[in-house]
Amino acid sequence: MEKLNSKNNEKIKYARALARSSAERKASGEFLLEGARLCSDAAESGTEIVRAFFTETAISKYGEYIGAVESVCSECYEISEEASDKISDTGSSQGVFCVCRAPDRSALSLKPGGRYIALENVQDPSNVGAVIRSAEALGIDALIISGGCDIYNPKALRAAMGSSLRMDIFTPDDLPEFIRRARENGMKAFACVPDRSAFDIRKINEISGGKGIICCIGNEGSGLTEQTVNACDAAVTIVMQGRAESLNAAAAAALTAWELKR
Amino acid sequence: MEKLNSKNNEKIKYARALARSSAERKASGEFLLEGARLCSDAAESGTEIVRAFFTETAISKYGEYIGAVESVCSECYEISEEASDKISDTGSSQGVFCVCRAPDRSALSLKPGGRYIALENVQDPSNVGAVIRSAEALGIDALIISGGCDIYNPKALRAAMGSSLRMDIFTPDDLPEFIRRARENGMKAFACVPDRSAFDIRKINEISGGKGIICCIGNEGSGLTEQTVNACDAAVTIVMQGRAESLNAAAAAALTAWELKR
Repeated sequence: MEKLNSKNNEKIKYARALARSSAERKASGEFLLEGARLCSDAAESGTEIVRAFFTETAISKYGEYIGAVESVCSECYEISEEASDKISDTGSSQGVFCVCRAPDRSALSLKPGGRYIALENVQDPSNVGAVIRSAEALGIDALIISGGCDIYNPKALRAAMGSSLRMDIFTPDDLPEFIRRARENGMKAFACVPDRSAFDIRKINEISGGKGIICCIGNEGSGLTEQTVNACDAAVTIVMQGRAESLNAAAAAALTAWELKR
Repeated sequence: MEKLNSKNNEKIKYARALARSSAERKASGEFLLEGARLCSDAAESGTEIVRAFFTETAISKYGEYIGAVESVCSECYEISEEASDKISDTGSSQGVFCVCRAPDRSALSLKPGGRYIALENVQDPSNVGAVIRSAEALGIDALIISGGCDIYNPKALRAAMGSSLRMDIFTPDDLPEFIRRARENGMKAFACVPDRSAFDIRKINEISGGKGIICCIGNEGSGLTEQTVNACDAAVTIVMQGRAESLNAAAAAALTAWELKR
């Protein structure tokens, strides 16, 4: 395996930039994965791995995971611990990194009768990652993630435990417009709001009349935008019996996914 | 309001230690709250506030919240920005801190017919905080938190959004023993496991035969201990339809709470 000796190598600097800058990820269409398990998940899920970096320690410690990456990536480098620390986003790096190409999602389409969750402006990377993980576990057909934290943020990728690489994810800039078009194509859309006069979410399948469903969840502090609420057919709510004002976005999404697939 | 001028004042150093050290919290029976909203939640929930610190900026910016604290705490100090930065656990502090006394929970008891969630060795503070928040929102009667992250960890307190101050929380060192005693007193206990041969969690109320329920959720990586699983009446599982291996502990707890109160 070729060695990259300087931590100032352009490829190292670029990997570091991908981990730190959403703008860099958007401009390049690439993102960085860190960690032995996530990188091997990428190889197994068919994610395009552009190049990979491993420390000597990682090569001896995570042979099986690294083998999976090497089998699909022709540009693998051995790097120093110093270069690994430079790239890493975590305090305790495993020394395994992949620069990946974000999949082309332009051909994705909603399935008739499908079950979808849309997130609008959810900011916290751990929340976004947890929603992606729960959505996959609970069998949601795809996610729609508009605004907020970039799905390729390193913390979001870690919290999603590889689900980001396997789930279909739409990322429309204009969520209300996306919803209007989906409704023209026969989907029902619901705004999930903390409002006791809205429909009980446990009735969501019943009131959708057998159609596909998009259920929208808003920002941690301010909820859904008025435009998105207005673009939906109706509002639903997670009936709460306790004293806390609301659930966090990841908990709300998990309950929504659970009821959509019930 | 008295000014504490040195950031090396012993009271400042002690507040900093409470934010950083679980051992310090255990030894003293006190913990630190940071943030205007959380501190005023403490005042409103009847938490004993031993002493409070505010920066000048905070006093002019968060007057209403600070007023709530002052009305129940006789030992309030104005501190410098430098002292605030020294205490703070966050990057962008509001400059509002309370040293609080952890409530005496020795007289807590389980209610017949109550609905309880037990966490065993859950490590991530954000997970623990999110579970406390969801449990309150969804009407769980109390939590049982054994091992893992201290409920007074600053990140856990933030993620719980004040619910830690209002919820009853048992913190037994020996969870299996706690469960055995609860069962002797007429409760049913269930181990939540990722095992398709376990009972479907949607049946949990039905199979509990009208008794109170404790449902146990384990560590993020290793799940429940064998001792805890063995101490329970039966195992339940959150049936997953997707490809991810499991839900995170906070999502599992939210779904469990939802089904317990369904």
